[in-house]
Amino acid sequence: MRKYVIEFIGTFFLVLAVCAAVRSQQELQSFAPLFVGLVLTAMIYAGKSFSGAHYNPAVSLAIFLRKKIRLIDMIGYWVIQLMAGVIGAIVAAKVFNYQTSLVSVTEPVAAITAEGIGTFALVFVILCVATSARSANNDYYGLAIGSVVVAMAYIVGPISGGAFNPAVALGLAVFEKLDWNSLWVYLVGSITGAVIAVILYKVLRLDIE
Amino acid sequence: MRKYVIEFIGTFFLVLAVCAAVRSQQELQSFAPLFVGLVLTAMIYAGKSFSGAHYNPAVSLAIFLRKKIRLIDMIGYWVIQLMAGVIGAIVAAKVFNYQTSLVSVTEPVAAITAEGIGTFALVFVILCVATSARSANNDYYGLAIGSVVVAMAYIVGPISGGAFNPAVALGLAVFEKLDWNSLWVYLVGSITGAVIAVILYKVLRLDIE
Amino acid sequence: MRKYVIEFIGTFFLVLAVCAAVRSQQELQSFAPLFVGLVLTAMIYAGKSFSGAHYNPAVSLAIFLRKKIRLIDMIGYWVIQLMAGVIGAIVAAKVFNYQTSLVSVTEPVAAITAEGIGTFALVFVILCVATSARSANNDYYGLAIGSVVVAMAYIVGPISGGAFNPAVALGLAVFEKLDWNSLWVYLVGSITGAVIAVILYKVLRLDIE
Amino acid sequence: MRKYVIEFIGTFFLVLAVCAAVRSQQELQSFAPLFVGLVLTAMIYAGKSFSGAHYNPAVSLAIFLRKKIRLIDMIGYWVIQLMAGVIGAIVAAKVFNYQTSLVSVTEPVAAITAEGIGTFALVFVILCVATSARSANNDYYGLAIGSVVVAMAYIVGPISGGAFNPAVALGLAVFEKLDWNSLWVYLVGSITGAVIAVILYKVLRLDIE
Repeated sequence: MRKYVIEFIGTFFLVLAVCAAVRSQQELQSFAPLFVGLVLTAMIYAGKSFSGAHYNPAVSLAIFLRKKIRLIDMIGYWVIQLMAGVIGAIVAAKVFNYQTSLVSVTEPVAAITAEGIGTFALVFVILCVATSARSANNDYYGLAIGSVVVAMAYIVGPISGGAFNPAVALGLAVFEKLDWNSLWVYLVGSITGAVIAVILYKVLRLDIE
Repeated sequence: MRKYVIEFIGTFFLVLAVCAAVRSQQELQSFAPLFVGLVLTAMIYAGKSFSGAHYNPAVSLAIFLRKKIRLIDMIGYWVIQLMAGVIGAIVAAKVFNYQTSLVSVTEPVAAITAEGIGTFALVFVILCVATSARSANNDYYGLAIGSVVVAMAYIVGPISGGAFNPAVALGLAVFEKLDWNSLWVYLVGSITGAVIAVILYKVLRLDIE
Repeated sequence: MRKYVIEFIGTFFLVLAVCAAVRSQQELQSFAPLFVGLVLTAMIYAGKSFSGAHYNPAVSLAIFLRKKIRLIDMIGYWVIQLMAGVIGAIVAAKVFNYQTSLVSVTEPVAAITAEGIGTFALVFVILCVATSARSANNDYYGLAIGSVVVAMAYIVGPISGGAFNPAVALGLAVFEKLDWNSLWVYLVGSITGAVIAVILYKVLRLDIE
Repeated sequence: MRKYVIEFIGTFFLVLAVCAAVRSQQELQSFAPLFVGLVLTAMIYAGKSFSGAHYNPAVSLAIFLRKKIRLIDMIGYWVIQLMAGVIGAIVAAKVFNYQTSLVSVTEPVAAITAEGIGTFALVFVILCVATSARSANNDYYGLAIGSVVVAMAYIVGPISGGAFNPAVALGLAVFEKLDWNSLWVYLVGSITGAVIAVILYKVLRLDIE
C-alpha cells in the first residue's frame, strides 16, 4: 500500500511540473527543464527507500527486467503512475487553470528517436547509480537522475518536448497539450529506450564483478 | 538560546531572498525561485545540527506533530521565525530600498490550493529526508529540500507567488507586496498542506520498519 | 608552498569568473551569480584538503580568528589571494579583452550593508559546514558554500554587485569596473561581515557540545 | 570491452548536448553551459566505476600521465571518444536536423588561452576530486566536475565557445559549427591545459602525504 501512495505522490508532482512547464504565455518557460528535473530530484530522495521512486512506467519496466521488482508490482506501479498522470493534469487544468496549445507530432521518426534517446539516457543513469552494486549506498543518485532529465529535456525539447515517461505523456494528452493521435510516439519511444538500456546493462554485465 | 538565533538567521535570509525575488523592475526575477531555494539549501546545511533548520512555522508545526520537538519549542520557534520575517522585510524595504507593487489574491481557492500543495510537497520531502530513520545520516537533505522549493515556486508561482511559509507571507505583507487582507490565504494554505503531509506520513507509517 | 599555489589557483578562477560576470554587452549576465558560485563550488571541492580553500581574505581572517590557521599563514594567504585577484583581472582585460563600464558606489551605507550581510552569510555558512565538529566529514560543504554565494549575489547584486571578498573587489578595481575611491566600501563591508560572523559563532559556542 | 562502451555513451551524450547548445535560433541557448555540465555530471556518476568516466581525450591523457591507465588504454579511449564525437554530431545534424552557422577562430591566441585555461581548470578539478588519496570515496566528484564545466563555459564561451575537449571539438567540426581550419586551436588549447594541470599536480605532489 505504502509504496503505491509514494509512487502516486512522486508521479503527481512530476506531471504537475510538466504541465506547468508547457503552460502558455509564461516567461518562465525557458526554466522548465530545470524545475522538472529538480522536482524529480527531490521526490527521488524522498521516496527512494519506500517505493524505489520510479514515478515512470518505463523505469518500472526497466527495474522489472532488471529483476528488482516482480511482474505484479510492475503492473500495480503502472496503474498508479498513469492515474497520477491523469490527476496531475486535471489539477493543472481545472484548479490552476493552466492553459496550453495543442501540439501534434509532425516528424514521428525524429520524435521517437528523441524520446528513445532521452529515456535511454535516463534509464542508463538510473541503472548505474541506483541498482549497481558498485555504487551502493551513494548519496548522489537523486542529483544524477535529476541532472540527466534536465539536460535531455533541454537537448531534445525542441524536437519532442522531452517526456521520457508514459505517465507524463498521458498527462500531457489529458492536459490537451498533446494530440491523442501522437501519444503512441511517446509510448514507443520511451519503452524502446528503456528496454535498450536494460539490454545494454545486461550485455555489459554492469552489475557483475 | 543558540537554536533561536540560528532559526532567526536562517529565516531572515530566506525572507530577504523572497523580498529580493519580488522587487520591481529587475531582469533577474525569472531566477527568483532558484536563488530562494539555494539560500534555503545553504542555511539548512549550516543550521540543521543546531536548530533543526526549520525557518518556517509550518515546518515547525509538522516537526512538533511528528513529536520531534516539544510544544514550548514550537511556540518559541514561531515567535522567532515571525520576528525574522518582519525584520527581513524591513531591511529589504528600508536599507536596500527594494520596491514592489501590492498584490491581492483574487482567486482564493486556487491560491490556497497552490500554497497547500506546495507546502505539502515541502513538508513531505522534509519528513522523508530529514526525520525518517531510513534516510539517517544522509548528505543530500539540503539539496532535496532546496530543490522542491525551487520547483514548486516555479510551478505555482504564477498562481500564488509560492511562499509555502507563514513567516515569508508575513514578511511579504510587511514589505507591502501582499495585501494584509490576503494574508489568511497563505496561512490557511501552508498550515493545511503541512498538516496533511504529517497525517499522510503517520498513516503510511513511513518511519516504521 | 603547496597551499599558496592552491589558494592562487582558486582565487584566480573566482576573480576571472567575476570579471566575466560584469563584462559589457553579454546576454549571459543574468547567469553571472550562478557561474560565479559554481566555480567556487568546484574549486572548494578541489582545494579544501590542501589549503582549506579560502580564496578570500575575509574568509582567511575568519578562519584565523576561529584559531584554525596561524597569523603568519593568514598574512601569506592575503598576499597570494590579492595577487591572484590582480592577475585574474589582468588576464580578463588583456588576454580576453573583456570590457566593462566603471561604477562608483553612490549609496555607501546600503552598499556596505549589502557587502556586510552577504559576507556574513558566506562566513557563517563556511564556519558551520567546514569548521564545526558537528558536521565533520560531510560531502556537502562545497554545495552549501557555492549556494549561499549564488543566492546572496542575486539578492544584493543590484545594490553593490556582490563581491563579498576583498580580493575580488581589488580585481574589479584593476579591471576598471570599480572606482578606486569606492574600494574601501567593499573592504569595510566584507571584513565587518566576516568578523561579526566569527563573533556570533563564538558567542553561540557553535563548535562546543 | 565494457569500459569502451561506457566511454562511447558518455562522450556521445556530451557531444549531443554541445551540438544542441550551439544550434541556431533557440531561445534556450543561454542555458547551454548549464545543460552541458549537467549531462556530464550525470554521465560521470553513471560511468565512473566502470571506465573512469573520462569522455574526453585530454582527460584520458592526463589520467595516463598521472599513471592511472596504461598507454594502450589511453589510445583505445581516444579512438572511441573521437568516434563518439563524430557519431553524436551526425545524430544531431541528420536525425534531429539541428542547424548551426559556421564559426572561424579569428583571434587564435585568445582562443587557445581560453581553451587552455578552461581545460586546465577541468583537469585540475578532476585530478583533485577523482584521483587524489585525500578525497577518496567522496560523493561530490560529479557535482564538482560538472560545476567547473558550466562555469568555464560561461566564462570563456564568448571567446572560444568552451569545448575543453578534443572529441567535442571534432564533433563541432563535423556538425559544421567549427571551421576545420580552426580545429587545431582547440586541440592545442585543450592538450596544453591538461598537460600543465598534470605537471602542476605532480610538482605540488598533491597525491602525497
